[in-house]
Amino acid sequence: MVPKLWNETIEEHRKAVREAVMDATAALVAHHGLAAVTMSRIAEDTGIGRATLYKYFPDVQAIVLAWHERQILSHLGYLAEVRDRTGAGARLAAVLEAYALILHEHEGTVDTATLHRGEHVGRAQHQLANFVTDLIAEGAHAGEVRDDIAADELARYCLHALTAATGFPTREAVHRLVQVTLDGVRPTR
Amino acid sequence: MVPKLWNETIEEHRKAVREAVMDATAALVAHHGLAAVTMSRIAEDTGIGRATLYKYFPDVQAIVLAWHERQILSHLGYLAEVRDRTGAGARLAAVLEAYALILHEHEGTVDTATLHRGEHVGRAQHQLANFVTDLIAEGAHAGEVRDDIAADELARYCLHALTAATGFPTREAVHRLVQVTLDGVRPTR
Repeated sequence: MVPKLWNETIEEHRKAVREAVMDATAALVAHHGLAAVTMSRIAEDTGIGRATLYKYFPDVQAIVLAWHERQILSHLGYLAEVRDRTGAGARLAAVLEAYALILHEHEGTVDTATLHRGEHVGRAQHQLANFVTDLIAEGAHAGEVRDDIAADELARYCLHALTAATGFPTREAVHRLVQVTLDGVRPTR
Repeated sequence: MVPKLWNETIEEHRKAVREAVMDATAALVAHHGLAAVTMSRIAEDTGIGRATLYKYFPDVQAIVLAWHERQILSHLGYLAEVRDRTGAGARLAAVLEAYALILHEHEGTVDTATLHRGEHVGRAQHQLANFVTDLIAEGAHAGEVRDDIAADELARYCLHALTAATGFPTREAVHRLVQVTLDGVRPTR
């Protein structure tokens, strides 16, 4: 086995530290909510010294945002799977339903609305918007989605409308929300 | 002039203090953003002692939530005016457009998404949801809105979809968002 280069080892170590911090954050949020995430608690739960932790993340918000980015990327991977296993005509519906169910099931743990605060919209959130924009453009091209309004505007509409799923009581209610949202993007009469 | 009862005077004083705190909060948020709101800063700007301030509000979040409640109530008053001056058939559209424009214009100052965090949904937010639910029920009764889905679910869908207005670049884009949102609640073909 060829020994790893020093830089590579350092890079792997850094990545492992970041992952450990994210994992601790995820566990804290799941068990105690977002407010429980503090620098001291993360340091304690990971066994990383506070001084070291501050070298990786300047504050709690940076940790929560990084964790949130990781989450969206993981959701995006799943949504891409849903897209790829669904026939062209039903893709948008399948992906929106899958996304709405993610929001619904993460209720109380991932408060995405809280995290998309202020000016910050992460790279992952942009990727999600682009992902849905592409699906909508594809649908418009096939005549299944309205083409009188730009695909990126329709994508924003869909993603915001579906955030209502967080407060809905049942999966059936979420399903109805997805249908109503889709009715908004159908070709106009 | 009949002198005021002592209790009444106290109550008025308390109200005046609360209003002064809200006003200072509004000014701080408008000029420096939500993050600038701190107990010390509010005490300084209002001339209310810190000890007294803490008797009124346990922490910054309590102040921001109270201020947010006052804001939604003021928006609600305006939306009720819009409703009352609009003919029955065009009411829902007029109110949703007015609400979307409020969200659009307050961009950066009122981050409503941030404020509707966690479990807290204020009384004012419920009133807003009820207000829109009533309009939708009225529309469904008149055959202008779909009746296959409960009015309160449709109201939630509308309010969430319109939060996209915060990130839209122009009033025209906001107008298109309102049209798409309305298309979602039209009677199904």
